Amino acid sequence: VRGRELVGQRSETVRRANLSAIARELHGRGALSRSELVARTGLTRSAIRGLIAEFVAANLVVEERSEPDGLPGRPSPLVRPRREAAVVLALEIAVDSIAAALVGLDGETIAQERVDRARGHSSVEEVTRDLLVLASRLSDLRRLRRALLGVGVAVVGIVGREDGLVSTAPNLGWRDVALGERLATALGLDVPIAVANEADLGALIELRRGAARGADDLLFIAGEVGVGGGIVVSGRPLTGVAGYAGEIGHLPVNPEGLPCRCGATGCWETEIGEEALLRKAGRPAAGGREAVDAVIAAAFAGDPAALGAVNEVGRWLGRGVAGLVNVLNPRVVVLGGLFSRLYPLLIDRVEEQLDRLALAAPRATVRLAPAQLGIDAPLLGAAELAFEPFLANPAAWLGARDSLAAETA
Amino acid sequence: VRGRELVGQRSETVRRANLSAIARELHGRGALSRSELVARTGLTRSAIRGLIAEFVAANLVVEERSEPDGLPGRPSPLVRPRREAAVVLALEIAVDSIAAALVGLDGETIAQERVDRARGHSSVEEVTRDLLVLASRLSDLRRLRRALLGVGVAVVGIVGREDGLVSTAPNLGWRDVALGERLATALGLDVPIAVANEADLGALIELRRGAARGADDLLFIAGEVGVGGGIVVSGRPLTGVAGYAGEIGHLPVNPEGLPCRCGATGCWETEIGEEALLRKAGRPAAGGREAVDAVIAAAFAGDPAALGAVNEVGRWLGRGVAGLVNVLNPRVVVLGGLFSRLYPLLIDRVEEQLDRLALAAPRATVRLAPAQLGIDAPLLGAAELAFEPFLANPAAWLGARDSLAAETA
Repeated sequence: VRGRELVGQRSETVRRANLSAIARELHGRGALSRSELVARTGLTRSAIRGLIAEFVAANLVVEERSEPDGLPGRPSPLVRPRREAAVVLALEIAVDSIAAALVGLDGETIAQERVDRARGHSSVEEVTRDLLVLASRLSDLRRLRRALLGVGVAVVGIVGREDGLVSTAPNLGWRDVALGERLATALGLDVPIAVANEADLGALIELRRGAARGADDLLFIAGEVGVGGGIVVSGRPLTGVAGYAGEIGHLPVNPEGLPCRCGATGCWETEIGEEALLRKAGRPAAGGREAVDAVIAAAFAGDPAALGAVNEVGRWLGRGVAGLVNVLNPRVVVLGGLFSRLYPLLIDRVEEQLDRLALAAPRATVRLAPAQLGIDAPLLGAAELAFEPFLANPAAWLGARDSLAAETA
Repeated sequence: VRGRELVGQRSETVRRANLSAIARELHGRGALSRSELVARTGLTRSAIRGLIAEFVAANLVVEERSEPDGLPGRPSPLVRPRREAAVVLALEIAVDSIAAALVGLDGETIAQERVDRARGHSSVEEVTRDLLVLASRLSDLRRLRRALLGVGVAVVGIVGREDGLVSTAPNLGWRDVALGERLATALGLDVPIAVANEADLGALIELRRGAARGADDLLFIAGEVGVGGGIVVSGRPLTGVAGYAGEIGHLPVNPEGLPCRCGATGCWETEIGEEALLRKAGRPAAGGREAVDAVIAAAFAGDPAALGAVNEVGRWLGRGVAGLVNVLNPRVVVLGGLFSRLYPLLIDRVEEQLDRLALAAPRATVRLAPAQLGIDAPLLGAAELAFEPFLANPAAWLGARDSLAAETA
């Protein structure tokens, strides 16, 4: 059967792949000239013209005359994605905040809201309700319906790849929560909802638009109360067999270490998470975000206790990074969250440990970088996740729009 | 340009993919009936017939009448790969032995030789000469030339993905050795030579023919003097950006640990490698293979000191496996080398540590298994590596054979 399908659908497959290549470029970079699209996709000028016409017909892009560029000949027309013609809703459930954003076809954020939440356990109902309030502030969801491609959700928990089931979220007190379904019901929107771990989504966005742009092998380390990781291998997220990969915070690094919230002892996050920073600075580990902010401020002000704590976190961070560099041989290690805030203070400690503990070969090919997208990385990653089915196969969606247009005509 | 190529070469692409699918089935499973090939490849009966005809024309397979199977109708003809029609030479440079094998198109080993080498440093010249002697015992290499697809080499060292450069092999005392080129010159064979790390090749063969058959996400742990790892993610080897991934022996697991040969301290292999086993059993760490054999025999005989050492190695093994299960979420962890020999004695300790230290979700989806292919896993993996270009695109090779036949006709 496969053989026949291949033969019968070949030209359709090519069209799909080409539409996808163009959609990715326009979404990733915004408006581009036709010449730039030719250069970036490797497609011929005439192929580009035909494919752009399909997007124009679906009202997703407009073509504009470019400014004269001083070169002989007509300047290449500018292809501009219409920001609000196709949008996604991104939601995030972090340790101490929740957020929502509307992101447009050109990759730009149309509107965004973030509010604090008290650390500690919350019911799914409560979080869902709060997210709904937040989302409704962004826009009239009913009005959006026609342009909405999907919803992406970043959550501080372990999420199954296929089912979007949050198997555990210790910071929220959740176990086996069908978050996608719950949100779908609450939002009442008839679009796909994709749920993923926030560090995985941070990795995705840093790769597409941030510190790891152009790299194919990436380790993203998100430091908050817990320490999460997003791993990208040859351009593809390393999910593991069931989507649970990347739980780097639970590498056992210290046999003499402290109990971890996961039930084990000596996990990496007991040495480098926010509570470890507080403890090492001689403050109560349960101090919360204000206490963390205070230690960071004190460290930047030169306070010896705070600096000592940052140095120690940096050394433990470096130990673990060295191990992961040996295991994964990444091009870039992006330090996010707490570690991006402390980056200038702890990077020397991290590099020292890499020099000591990483093997020469993978050490030579890796660079460290602070996350560029800051605390919004998981939220923006959730938007990318929601765009993905459209970007992978815009043809399906163009078809759906056509039938919709026919129905409502 | 890409657009034009796609259009022009589409049917050729399909033919290549289909030839590849058939070659992989016949190589992986030996003789198969046409019906089995239909079921396994999803290709139509008529497509299979045409493709098989190409292999028959190139003298790579023969079709045989099957035995009557008691079912109505003619039994489906049996398609049998001709073992010696296309072969590869596999070479291995291990810590205390070197080996060579000739493997045939049907995946079966035609001849194999392994000899001890003294542990410790050897010059590249010496090892190359010894391998040449070994290879020449397998077969007349000159006679083989027509059927030889390539050479695969497994080496106990860190190997670059693209260039086959052995960047470090601490057990051999090598640094930046262009092993592929050296062997190509020495062998005087005009075929591709591919070099890879032995644990990566162990993973490959356990996936294709061993304990992890059918799994797509695998961690293979090779325990010898050093501890190496081969990681497979979604069916593809995790090589990292430059081929250095999988150096799991150098995860820093013990901040109070011993110096490692890599220059760091507290690496995993200082707690679970052969020298660790000897030391924990109260014997000189430099005792070599005989001493290791003696401790293993003593442990199986119930000797308390040996059993204590095995238990401790098992606990440290479990600690690291737990961390890697959290990071990688593999389906199978295959324990090879030392750990497959000690498997019945240490598996309970490993499972205990997994229960303690691995997160519930990835813990629930992983199983442990001893390596099935024993110490020959890397050697047989090297053969698979050498077959890979042919299996990925037999069309190119069928073409070359045609022109060769035309030239010599």
